[in-house]
Amino acid sequence: MTTPAVPGPEGPRPAPARRRPGGRTARIRAQVLDAVLVELGEHGYDGLTVDAVAARAGVHRATVYRRWGDVGGLLADVLDAAGDDDWQPPDTGSLEGDLAALNQEIQEALTARPPIVAALIAASFRSEKAAHAQQRFWEDRYARCGTVVDRAVRRGELPPQTDARRLLVAATAPLYHQLVLLRTPSDPRMPGDAARAAALAAAAGAFAGSPPAGGTRGASRS
Amino acid sequence: MTTPAVPGPEGPRPAPARRRPGGRTARIRAQVLDAVLVELGEHGYDGLTVDAVAARAGVHRATVYRRWGDVGGLLADVLDAAGDDDWQPPDTGSLEGDLAALNQEIQEALTARPPIVAALIAASFRSEKAAHAQQRFWEDRYARCGTVVDRAVRRGELPPQTDARRLLVAATAPLYHQLVLLRTPSDPRMPGDAARAAALAAAAGAFAGSPPAGGTRGASRS
Repeated sequence: MTTPAVPGPEGPRPAPARRRPGGRTARIRAQVLDAVLVELGEHGYDGLTVDAVAARAGVHRATVYRRWGDVGGLLADVLDAAGDDDWQPPDTGSLEGDLAALNQEIQEALTARPPIVAALIAASFRSEKAAHAQQRFWEDRYARCGTVVDRAVRRGELPPQTDARRLLVAATAPLYHQLVLLRTPSDPRMPGDAARAAALAAAAGAFAGSPPAGGTRGASRS
Repeated sequence: MTTPAVPGPEGPRPAPARRRPGGRTARIRAQVLDAVLVELGEHGYDGLTVDAVAARAGVHRATVYRRWGDVGGLLADVLDAAGDDDWQPPDTGSLEGDLAALNQEIQEALTARPPIVAALIAASFRSEKAAHAQQRFWEDRYARCGTVVDRAVRRGELPPQTDARRLLVAATAPLYHQLVLLRTPSDPRMPGDAARAAALAAAAGAFAGSPPAGGTRGASRS
């Protein structure tokens, strides 16, 4: 969680001004991607243009067009850069605690001002490139969070055959659903409530194999 | 589930051609809203224009502009009309069965061709009017689904103080998250899996009041 562009599991934000590592190419990329985030936060997808990004970054517009092509290419690279970090999920000592801390990061990202993560999600409905990059970013985050489930299994909190992705989606989906789709006002209890529900379901074996249609557990799957 | 524009909990689709009840005003509204759905399904939000809707509906464009104003107004009215029906949630005899049947309807709506519900969700990121109408539609659907929880409480499946909305969001959110945001390919087990997880969490008391920060149940809330 120390790289410039990523505060948590859920996305990028502009880095504070500082000296960039790497050569000229890396420096230009960092300037351009930061400019994308600032423009996106200020104007949303509709106000985002390659020309405005180039002007804000202090980079020639021909360079931006050549390297990123269009707004979709810029957004995709923002997400790819955000995923290129060393973020790891919280480690609090319990499954419920880890999920609650993860949800807390998600809630903060989804309600942050300027609303960059929300704007990226909205942009994913406009640009296929951004949509695919967001998918890659999220799948990588869920994969990293597998360690939360592994630790819980090692502690004996969960059955060994627990489906990590399904548990993690159950724990985090209510936050996205309420804040992004239902547009429910943010509630400080939401992260912990959703974590607790998923942890209780997990402890009851909800994610330890999918039952066959009849509703009883199939020996071949568990 | 018998009104022309609504197949289930999750949204509208064009009605088959048939005689409309009501007078000329109602007939024009039905023609225009059906035309919105067809245009949206064929071209998405970007291809949706008042003029194309008017032409397809066989209604003078001045009438459409006067009554609906713009594309956002048309989409909002589609959603308001969709909510003006007698849809009730499934009644299968068990909480898990009801939630699974509900999720099945949601999965079908979200993966339908043409992708009208998906296009309406995408449009809600473009138009404030559509976003507010979608919120109203969903809140009304969740309120109607409260009967699923009431029945489960009466059957003794759930504690009486269960928070219906929180349980329903937990049951349905994984479908929306996977199909709309993560763009996970549809899986026939998804509706039942998410229903089962929520039912197990509910039976364990996950939605019977929110615990205080320490993690133990507060007497004042339960």
